[in-house]
Amino acid sequence: MSAIRHALNTKREDDFAAWYQEVISAADMAEESGVRGCMVIKPWGYGIWERIQRLMDDRIKAAGVQNCYFPIFIPLANFEREAEHVEGFAKEMAVVTHHRLIADGKGGLIPDPEAKLEEPLVVRPTSETIIGDAMARWIQSWRDLPLLTNQWANVVRWEMRTRMFLRTSEFLWQEGHTAHATREDALEETHRALEMYRACAEDDLAMPVIAGEKPENERFPGADETWSIEAMMQDGKALQAGTSHYLGTNFAHAAGIKYQDKEGGEQFCHTTSWGVSTRLVGGIIMTHGDDDGLRVPPKIAPHQIVILPMLRDKPEDGAVLAYCEEVRAALADQSALGEPMRVLLDKTPGKAAGKRWDWVRKGAPIIVEVGPRDMENGKLAVLRRDRLWNPDNGKPNFDFADRDAFIGGAADMLGEIQQALFAEARERRDANITRGVTSMDEVAAHFAEDKRYPGWVEVEWSKPSGETLDKVVEQLKALKLTLRNVPRGGEAASGTCIFTGEPAVERVLVARAY
Amino acid sequence: MSAIRHALNTKREDDFAAWYQEVISAADMAEESGVRGCMVIKPWGYGIWERIQRLMDDRIKAAGVQNCYFPIFIPLANFEREAEHVEGFAKEMAVVTHHRLIADGKGGLIPDPEAKLEEPLVVRPTSETIIGDAMARWIQSWRDLPLLTNQWANVVRWEMRTRMFLRTSEFLWQEGHTAHATREDALEETHRALEMYRACAEDDLAMPVIAGEKPENERFPGADETWSIEAMMQDGKALQAGTSHYLGTNFAHAAGIKYQDKEGGEQFCHTTSWGVSTRLVGGIIMTHGDDDGLRVPPKIAPHQIVILPMLRDKPEDGAVLAYCEEVRAALADQSALGEPMRVLLDKTPGKAAGKRWDWVRKGAPIIVEVGPRDMENGKLAVLRRDRLWNPDNGKPNFDFADRDAFIGGAADMLGEIQQALFAEARERRDANITRGVTSMDEVAAHFAEDKRYPGWVEVEWSKPSGETLDKVVEQLKALKLTLRNVPRGGEAASGTCIFTGEPAVERVLVARAY
Repeated sequence: MSAIRHALNTKREDDFAAWYQEVISAADMAEESGVRGCMVIKPWGYGIWERIQRLMDDRIKAAGVQNCYFPIFIPLANFEREAEHVEGFAKEMAVVTHHRLIADGKGGLIPDPEAKLEEPLVVRPTSETIIGDAMARWIQSWRDLPLLTNQWANVVRWEMRTRMFLRTSEFLWQEGHTAHATREDALEETHRALEMYRACAEDDLAMPVIAGEKPENERFPGADETWSIEAMMQDGKALQAGTSHYLGTNFAHAAGIKYQDKEGGEQFCHTTSWGVSTRLVGGIIMTHGDDDGLRVPPKIAPHQIVILPMLRDKPEDGAVLAYCEEVRAALADQSALGEPMRVLLDKTPGKAAGKRWDWVRKGAPIIVEVGPRDMENGKLAVLRRDRLWNPDNGKPNFDFADRDAFIGGAADMLGEIQQALFAEARERRDANITRGVTSMDEVAAHFAEDKRYPGWVEVEWSKPSGETLDKVVEQLKALKLTLRNVPRGGEAASGTCIFTGEPAVERVLVARAY
Repeated sequence: MSAIRHALNTKREDDFAAWYQEVISAADMAEESGVRGCMVIKPWGYGIWERIQRLMDDRIKAAGVQNCYFPIFIPLANFEREAEHVEGFAKEMAVVTHHRLIADGKGGLIPDPEAKLEEPLVVRPTSETIIGDAMARWIQSWRDLPLLTNQWANVVRWEMRTRMFLRTSEFLWQEGHTAHATREDALEETHRALEMYRACAEDDLAMPVIAGEKPENERFPGADETWSIEAMMQDGKALQAGTSHYLGTNFAHAAGIKYQDKEGGEQFCHTTSWGVSTRLVGGIIMTHGDDDGLRVPPKIAPHQIVILPMLRDKPEDGAVLAYCEEVRAALADQSALGEPMRVLLDKTPGKAAGKRWDWVRKGAPIIVEVGPRDMENGKLAVLRRDRLWNPDNGKPNFDFADRDAFIGGAADMLGEIQQALFAEARERRDANITRGVTSMDEVAAHFAEDKRYPGWVEVEWSKPSGETLDKVVEQLKALKLTLRNVPRGGEAASGTCIFTGEPAVERVLVARAY
């Protein structure tokens, strides 16, 4: 059994943060732009985001939600109306104050003092307030409800410390915004969106999540309830991967979103909002990446199968290419996981063996290499990215498959890979949630141990609020811990709150987090 | 023969501008947002844009161009580098100067003086300069060329006079940016993109266009050549519907986009950029709309067929709905124009006859109404939006079709409608281009006539430049006319330039324009 020489320089267990950056660079997914806090998303990273968008958008449309587009600029007055909301966002927004540049006389440019805006505009950090204005115009009667809208957009939150995909000043997301006649209807929508996120994360991204309610201190500014899906990264930290908010009538009061009920009375609407962002791409890296790079689940892989012809500048090259093209066409004609199979015949210059490692780092689910001898024998060399190494000899785990058998079985193989990645992540997640911790001392001991990946602990608590909760948050902060969520449908509590000593009412997850 | 009572208040021939606004409102496509120069794109308008995006994106990907995403903010330094470019854009950009708001002590918010940016950032009006930075990082050798990128994004140009879809401060677009080893390669890409736009406009949007080169005065700031597709609106004005620029090595010099050639020498890249925007939606309205609202070509209609059940709060309603659902499913199972058919069974409250006119105004290609008697007889009432009125009696032109015959023929009918809309627009366009005009006096007479829709004139010219061209532009401006483009592959010139009296070298289109 030989030692494996991995395709990255950094191993996860040596330096997880450096490994994360190396995957992004080695898989050519994104890079720093030179503009403060903003990244450039490169084709492979953007291709994965496009796949997520397509699958999420199908789910959004299937729920009867209609896409719209709202202005990127929000007048200050909109923020001034919702006190909690502005408190939460005003500290980190990009503010437009001028609409023209002029020469500064020294070869440079400055904002034109003559072109100062009367009222500055904010680049949207989220769109509740501007969409609230539209809802107030669009809704008159109970017949106009529910109003179900969504937009795919860029938003800007001025972040001091940024990390690619996870926290950038500008990011891409979808934001759903809905208005309803009753609290009950709005809560139902809040949960529908949450469940949609869970299903997309688990079934499309193969990323297991725990759906639950965020504690009061982690609520979206202006929300009555905030629910999230939380995913466990391979370093044991939590990633909040999507949120769904029940906003009560708070934004309705601020924007005047009212309707006439069946009896002719005037009522305020109950609204919701929910979003996922390019952060999901970071979650995919930290869920599925290994010491050889990324592994992309087939459902969201821009190319599910990459075919590499082994060309040698010899006369038989043409025949090898033709054989590869036949295989490509036969595969592309089929469906896998409910969609046409996405197959790339990579004809770019370079040796197949070198290009193989590029695709390993990018995490294409299946890599197929074809040389003249394979062609003669009607064979292919097939490498599954999720079973990259042969444990017996430490070499790439090629299966020299019969061409037609591979073509006939490729859809099933992609399905298996999707399942295998999910099962692996779920097992790891489940193995790293510790239950039965009954005191803060035990929590401290759990996370203080020289254990790299302490995962999450689930503890019973009395659901404190206000200042009592603030103290809990402070205590946890001292251990670099945060409250994640109270799992939906979790087991009932039967003991004592580890924070307050009062009778526990539910269980909450505690973890380090991104 | 009865008079037709049209579904809009304004007729095109009475007030084209007011008619345009009324279509947008009556078809529920978009509205003013209250934020200066920005619009809200509503579901029907955005759905048409999503269709355009999908079809254009397929064309872009088929050409091997890869989607990326670049920052929305551009540092001033990027603009300062390219003199012509900044001259063209600096006058109309949104400038971010602060990254935080604070309370003003009077219940309002102001930009925090402590959070002033050291260098202001510009909200991108277009991305040549920021993508140029990335190209300079990504390209080292001739092996890296061509580099073919595209992004779908929002951009902001501070416009004084705005008109929905046609000219808004924020708009949505795609911008392709490519780098090449040689002038020849870059010009080939410039023309490939132009041809892609022509094909998409004509084959997908059913909007006939003339592809050609813009004269020098209409070039993109910093371009060596600008090509456009120009469409004729129903008022005879021209709409520039897409542009493709050959940028020479101008942006390559500004950003340092260089490559090592096969001989080891250092060369500057030749770059291109090309874009189409939400302006296309305005073009669709002014190409296909009529006095009853919009008519959406089937390829870009969010719903190609809308089924309206006639419900009467009676026991047979359930059976009518079930019959409609069967028809919907049978249609949705088929393909039309190369894609799965998009069929809506509209179950929203309201009478079918009222909803019919909503869908007429929105321009759904085929509207199907089903009442209890139709169901009993296995029939449907089918209304083609492009043949809305029965000329004999001035009533809606319903065809009471056999259910199975309609289902079997629906795909062909959608294909016919697509063709019919294109043919109608092309005939009108061709009938309204006047050739053989040989003097400025004739041009003035042509456009001075009390003729509402003088269309375009094609004149021979000597292709003047510099100050001579400036004078031509001035002369035309006095008649509210502009130079549109020199049609690609147009007829050769044989006479005298109508502006300079010199021998003509080519033909140029002159028109009023949006």
